[in-house]
Amino acid sequence: MSTEPLVIFTPSGKRGHFPAGTPILTAARQLGVDLDSVCGGRGICSKCQITPSFGEFSKHGVTVQEDAISEWNSVEQRYKDKRGLIDGRRLGCQATVQGDIVIDVPPESQVHRQVVRKAASDRTITMDPATHLYYVEVDEPDMHEPTGDLERLERALQEQWEIGSITADLKILTRLQTVLRKGKWAATVALHKSHKDEAHKVVEIWSGMTEDRIYGLAIDLGSTTIAAHLCDLRNGEVKASTGVMNPQIRFGEDLMSRVSYAMMNPGGDQEMTNAVRTAINGLTEAIATEAGIRPFQILETVFVCNPVMHHLLLGIDPVELGQAPFALATSESLALNARDLDLNVMNENAQVYILPCIAGHVGADAAAVALSEEPDKSEDLVLVVDVGTNAEILLGNKERVLACSSPTGPAFEGAQISSGQRAAPGAIERIEINPETKEPRFRVIGSDIWSDEDGFDAVIATTGITGICGSGIIEAVAEMRIAGLLDPKGLIGSAEQTGTSRSIPEGRTHSYVIHDGSAEGGPVITVTQGDIRAIQLAKSALYAGARLLMDEMGVDTVDRVVLAGAFGAHISTKHAMVLGMIPDAPLDKVTSAGNAAGTGARIALSNLGARVEIERIVREITKVETAIEPKFQEHFVNANAIPHATDPFPELAKITTLPDVSFNTGGSGGGDQGGRRRRRRG
Amino acid sequence: MSTEPLVIFTPSGKRGHFPAGTPILTAARQLGVDLDSVCGGRGICSKCQITPSFGEFSKHGVTVQEDAISEWNSVEQRYKDKRGLIDGRRLGCQATVQGDIVIDVPPESQVHRQVVRKAASDRTITMDPATHLYYVEVDEPDMHEPTGDLERLERALQEQWEIGSITADLKILTRLQTVLRKGKWAATVALHKSHKDEAHKVVEIWSGMTEDRIYGLAIDLGSTTIAAHLCDLRNGEVKASTGVMNPQIRFGEDLMSRVSYAMMNPGGDQEMTNAVRTAINGLTEAIATEAGIRPFQILETVFVCNPVMHHLLLGIDPVELGQAPFALATSESLALNARDLDLNVMNENAQVYILPCIAGHVGADAAAVALSEEPDKSEDLVLVVDVGTNAEILLGNKERVLACSSPTGPAFEGAQISSGQRAAPGAIERIEINPETKEPRFRVIGSDIWSDEDGFDAVIATTGITGICGSGIIEAVAEMRIAGLLDPKGLIGSAEQTGTSRSIPEGRTHSYVIHDGSAEGGPVITVTQGDIRAIQLAKSALYAGARLLMDEMGVDTVDRVVLAGAFGAHISTKHAMVLGMIPDAPLDKVTSAGNAAGTGARIALSNLGARVEIERIVREITKVETAIEPKFQEHFVNANAIPHATDPFPELAKITTLPDVSFNTGGSGGGDQGGRRRRRRG
Repeated sequence: MSTEPLVIFTPSGKRGHFPAGTPILTAARQLGVDLDSVCGGRGICSKCQITPSFGEFSKHGVTVQEDAISEWNSVEQRYKDKRGLIDGRRLGCQATVQGDIVIDVPPESQVHRQVVRKAASDRTITMDPATHLYYVEVDEPDMHEPTGDLERLERALQEQWEIGSITADLKILTRLQTVLRKGKWAATVALHKSHKDEAHKVVEIWSGMTEDRIYGLAIDLGSTTIAAHLCDLRNGEVKASTGVMNPQIRFGEDLMSRVSYAMMNPGGDQEMTNAVRTAINGLTEAIATEAGIRPFQILETVFVCNPVMHHLLLGIDPVELGQAPFALATSESLALNARDLDLNVMNENAQVYILPCIAGHVGADAAAVALSEEPDKSEDLVLVVDVGTNAEILLGNKERVLACSSPTGPAFEGAQISSGQRAAPGAIERIEINPETKEPRFRVIGSDIWSDEDGFDAVIATTGITGICGSGIIEAVAEMRIAGLLDPKGLIGSAEQTGTSRSIPEGRTHSYVIHDGSAEGGPVITVTQGDIRAIQLAKSALYAGARLLMDEMGVDTVDRVVLAGAFGAHISTKHAMVLGMIPDAPLDKVTSAGNAAGTGARIALSNLGARVEIERIVREITKVETAIEPKFQEHFVNANAIPHATDPFPELAKITTLPDVSFNTGGSGGGDQGGRRRRRRG
Repeated sequence: MSTEPLVIFTPSGKRGHFPAGTPILTAARQLGVDLDSVCGGRGICSKCQITPSFGEFSKHGVTVQEDAISEWNSVEQRYKDKRGLIDGRRLGCQATVQGDIVIDVPPESQVHRQVVRKAASDRTITMDPATHLYYVEVDEPDMHEPTGDLERLERALQEQWEIGSITADLKILTRLQTVLRKGKWAATVALHKSHKDEAHKVVEIWSGMTEDRIYGLAIDLGSTTIAAHLCDLRNGEVKASTGVMNPQIRFGEDLMSRVSYAMMNPGGDQEMTNAVRTAINGLTEAIATEAGIRPFQILETVFVCNPVMHHLLLGIDPVELGQAPFALATSESLALNARDLDLNVMNENAQVYILPCIAGHVGADAAAVALSEEPDKSEDLVLVVDVGTNAEILLGNKERVLACSSPTGPAFEGAQISSGQRAAPGAIERIEINPETKEPRFRVIGSDIWSDEDGFDAVIATTGITGICGSGIIEAVAEMRIAGLLDPKGLIGSAEQTGTSRSIPEGRTHSYVIHDGSAEGGPVITVTQGDIRAIQLAKSALYAGARLLMDEMGVDTVDRVVLAGAFGAHISTKHAMVLGMIPDAPLDKVTSAGNAAGTGARIALSNLGARVEIERIVREITKVETAIEPKFQEHFVNANAIPHATDPFPELAKITTLPDVSFNTGGSGGGDQGGRRRRRRG
């Protein structure tokens, strides 16, 4: 047995014998313990803080004496006097091993700190970002061996950090000499190492150690909203999350109307490009303020977006995406400088990574969902549906992954619904209809109390009851079907047929009254026959897309379903199944993944390997274009019934029995009006 | 022996047997015959034109029948009808071998056409530029296999030209879809392949075959003038050469005063950067007009320049170059986009290459001289001197190359000389002084007639006699020394001492009158004692720099001397030797290389391998910093004498005997005044 002191690190449990006098940081490195250091062991950065533990550790079989760690040396003492250290903490690069000892590495001293996702699954993101900070001390220039400042910086990085060759663009070169001299030849360098390049790129340099934190943005650039997470690039921690409306909405609510705007108005594409870039600059400013950081500390940004937003962000006219064959200018991932996109609030040298697009209708956002939900690693066959104005659909397992998009339209988001509204306080989000009395009860956003419970009126006093949001309309239609107010073809029965006065005539069709607020000057909230048709169109498109992938895969059922998208998080899976939005599956196998695209963006921001992975996955995905598949129309028509005209729903039958009603009195009902309406992408 | 037809190519003499029906282009490629093609054998570009020869060729041992080449096919005929072909010419990609045949490849059909240098040496530049044109036909997009336009372009380049991966920046991406569709999926692509990158970069793309010529600029960015050559990137042909004054002159005549301007005026460096970039834009416009091309056809530019101009071009404050240790921001070569330097007259995607700098005083211009004059390949020991305001000096052979710069000041260019002027019509450029009569005769720029010959007055009637240019002053001083008007220490003798009334008193010293134009209202042109001192300072600096390199090399003599620089081309080598500007050498071993820096720029523009080579050479060169070598001052003082105080000049002695005179009468002469003047870099 070694007579050298035993060093045990927690929480990793790694242990080894080291000669007395070995710095804790050195021992950690030799054992592969994850202990951070930016200054390279100079006692400057304090990133390597550790907590020595003393006493008897029967679990580890050691007793740690008070003198098992060295006295404070002058460097360590100076750091503590100047900057302060939490009691019990020591600098791992200065404190040395003197006897058997147990060393705890606190989470903030771990570089590859694993970040637990807050979403449903427990998958963790290992930090391996493209951009890192390095503190270096650079040789002063020497007339006898003349080299440039950049070349001496490169040599310092090689010698002190084992970094290979570096590159620096003009923006860095013009500042380099001043920064190095101001820092007395010490500097903190941010290096970006792409997975595509050999060289490290200098993206920022600061004198001495004036900065020790850098950040990244993960941006989900949607047609309606732009959502961003600001992450600490050292440990992946989300410092702030925020979103803004996409200002392009003023050029058109959905994507197709924006493409039309570009086609009809010369320079219109550039207008929209400017609008979205300006919005991202504003968002950057806002999120930095919220997190209390300075925008120039943001050195990386990852974008995920659908193909039209992708082109408009890049300044490419999206006109080709509005017509067959829906050709992208480029489908590969892109690496750019922030300033190439006029993103001048974040650091102008910030590196931008845009995930690859899967096809002309299946964008980088769908790629991000694939990265987050990993259908390619699934043992069982999983259907992943990102529900939005366009639904992106992935179907696959370890063997093979298929993808398509389907033009669901905005009905699921409450748009084009008579009483529809965006998800906001006052919107009805949950509904139940008593199958006996046909009376509804509901809940509105901003309240946990149902409308038939005490205190409901008080709670909604300020917001009122203003409309129905996307998840609310799905529940309403499904509940109407369960309660026998709606037949399988989607016809609302009359008061006579249904036995409730809440069914009121409206032209030649009927509407169902959920809430009459007219007495208090509020709206009358109904579900009209037109609303039902809009929902039928949307859900038929979604189902038909999924069914097309199942055809291609040669299956009739899937093992599980994942609903992604912010909206997906709020959908009642049971009601979605009653509607026939998604193929039949055991209810406990239908789960929500939250904003999976945003999570995918964060993963790509935090881990370089994930970029390699998603680029490979996207190349291997089989793309199915719904617009040209003859069977799509057939699937679409069959899916118009609720839940479906021909496909059996055995799992749904286990949990609910849908009444066998029919309200078609011949010629009355506009039963086909939906089929005649033009479906548009958007 | 093969029974297949024999094909013989001239001028290469390459020959081989091919089956009847083989296209000439195919035969050429298989034999490695240099025959161009941009369209890849589609009969569109006509770059592969050849001339079949008929009849008896006893030299080649074949008789060529009239039917040895195929009839005109429809593609070839259509080309001829539409665009025309020189009589006898055929398209090599369409015409096929039918019998034994002799095929001549005209120079314009050769890609790697060797360009004969017009300068003294006969070295040739082999064309291997970084940027080439490729005509491709791109697959149309297919919904069943969705890929981006860029990815299909990449595939087309791979399949049709065996090009590896490509990259394209946003400026190309935003235009790509329109260009491809306008050309009905045919396009001409300019690809740039750097020696540092694996990928080819798309720098320009045109629909169909609308463009088939691309150009490059080789720019020698000097402190005083900016000189450019416009070259055809296909064959290296110089289409136009032009120069403009460097507008930075208004901030300071020499480099040091520009550095001072930057130090004294906040933003002064940026002012000078803007000035030089604007001048380059103007130069680009002018040279394109002169050559009759459109500026966007310029897709590459190579710069050579001294370190201060290098930093000012890049937008880097040159202040560090004005003080020890003369640190460069970067010494390595640089690859940039034209727009990074605001060069927006040439194609904004033009690729810029800047040669590496050797040291803080020895710039990319010296590197270009090394590339052009190749001291590193010399069997004998060669001293290369680029004479300008700063002299760059290279000494070496195959074993080792040394470099330094020496602050000669502007005297050699006629500045700071009492009657000095730039080389322009009216300036005296050649002088002879009769050693008996002490009478001068001279020639002025713009005339081939000497001043004592008939017709001289008529010839100079329009220009007059206005001053002395750089080469004139060198001849004047050397002739004065040969004629005994000047002693070895540089003192001008009085009329009494020299016996000529052309020696006139001026204060406590004397001047020598070359020409008195006062009768005609013109200037009196003299060489003053001050002029002598200025020339002594300049030549001492030059000699001391060379001597320092010889010390480092451990030699007392060199085998040959090459004078580079536009000025070097006009210096009389004998007079330079009399002055002691350069070390003693056989006169026939002292040659002029013309604008070697400009030639080096053209080489780097034309040949990618030359860039690899010069980067290696610069790394291997031993840099000597004159400012800190204690022996420099000693060498400088000894070199003050004409030709030299201590070094023997045996080769000079073989061709001329310098009179042993001394005009020092004690205390009279300002003999040390030169030594007291501050020498400044610039």
